[in-house]
Amino acid sequence: MKADINDAMCPSRGVLEHVTSRWGVLVLVALRERSYRFSELRRHIGGVSEKMLAQTLQTLERDGFVHRDAKPVIPPRVDYSLTELGEEAAEQVEALGRWTEKRTQTVLANRDRYDEARS
Amino acid sequence: MKADINDAMCPSRGVLEHVTSRWGVLVLVALRERSYRFSELRRHIGGVSEKMLAQTLQTLERDGFVHRDAKPVIPPRVDYSLTELGEEAAEQVEALGRWTEKRTQTVLANRDRYDEARS
Repeated sequence: MKADINDAMCPSRGVLEHVTSRWGVLVLVALRERSYRFSELRRHIGGVSEKMLAQTLQTLERDGFVHRDAKPVIPPRVDYSLTELGEEAAEQVEALGRWTEKRTQTVLANRDRYDEARS
Repeated sequence: MKADINDAMCPSRGVLEHVTSRWGVLVLVALRERSYRFSELRRHIGGVSEKMLAQTLQTLERDGFVHRDAKPVIPPRVDYSLTELGEEAAEQVEALGRWTEKRTQTVLANRDRYDEARS
């Protein structure tokens, strides 16, 4: 069976939604630098709630993109890092993120032009 | 000002959400092949509603990724194609989409393993 993102029934749709989700993108990009502890990651990614970050990490762990390492220490310490598969996903997603940062000003100017032409 | 996707207030967040939106991704990938008419595009992208496709195309047009060409003919004919900026975005997004298709089976197997370990 060949996966096809244009097929509404294909499970690749769900995978794509995980790697392109608002917080999924930012988690993958962050973990590309290095492993993070939960609280560090939450500080690094502006605006993410504890609940959304936990949910995102669990989804990415279940898909096999993120490795969760719970150290048996007191106080408990949990490190998150990328698996090999996660590294591949993160590479794609980071390229998109960097491109977006580079082109944001252009997009904002395009929006102004669009709105002016219609006002 | 340097855009930063980790900053909750940075407008790059909104741009990223447009290029990674469920239908935004699929529209960009489709238009990378060739220009499409609205109804063709709707058939090509499984599961998209007329309303969501129209909304997605308008968002991408406003951002300057998609060019809308309304031909003055009867019956009316509207073609959608990528701008140069859209071509750049679509290139990134297509790479991610193709990677996802290629890795979907692996992700499904990972999920099974995750669920089994916890059942």
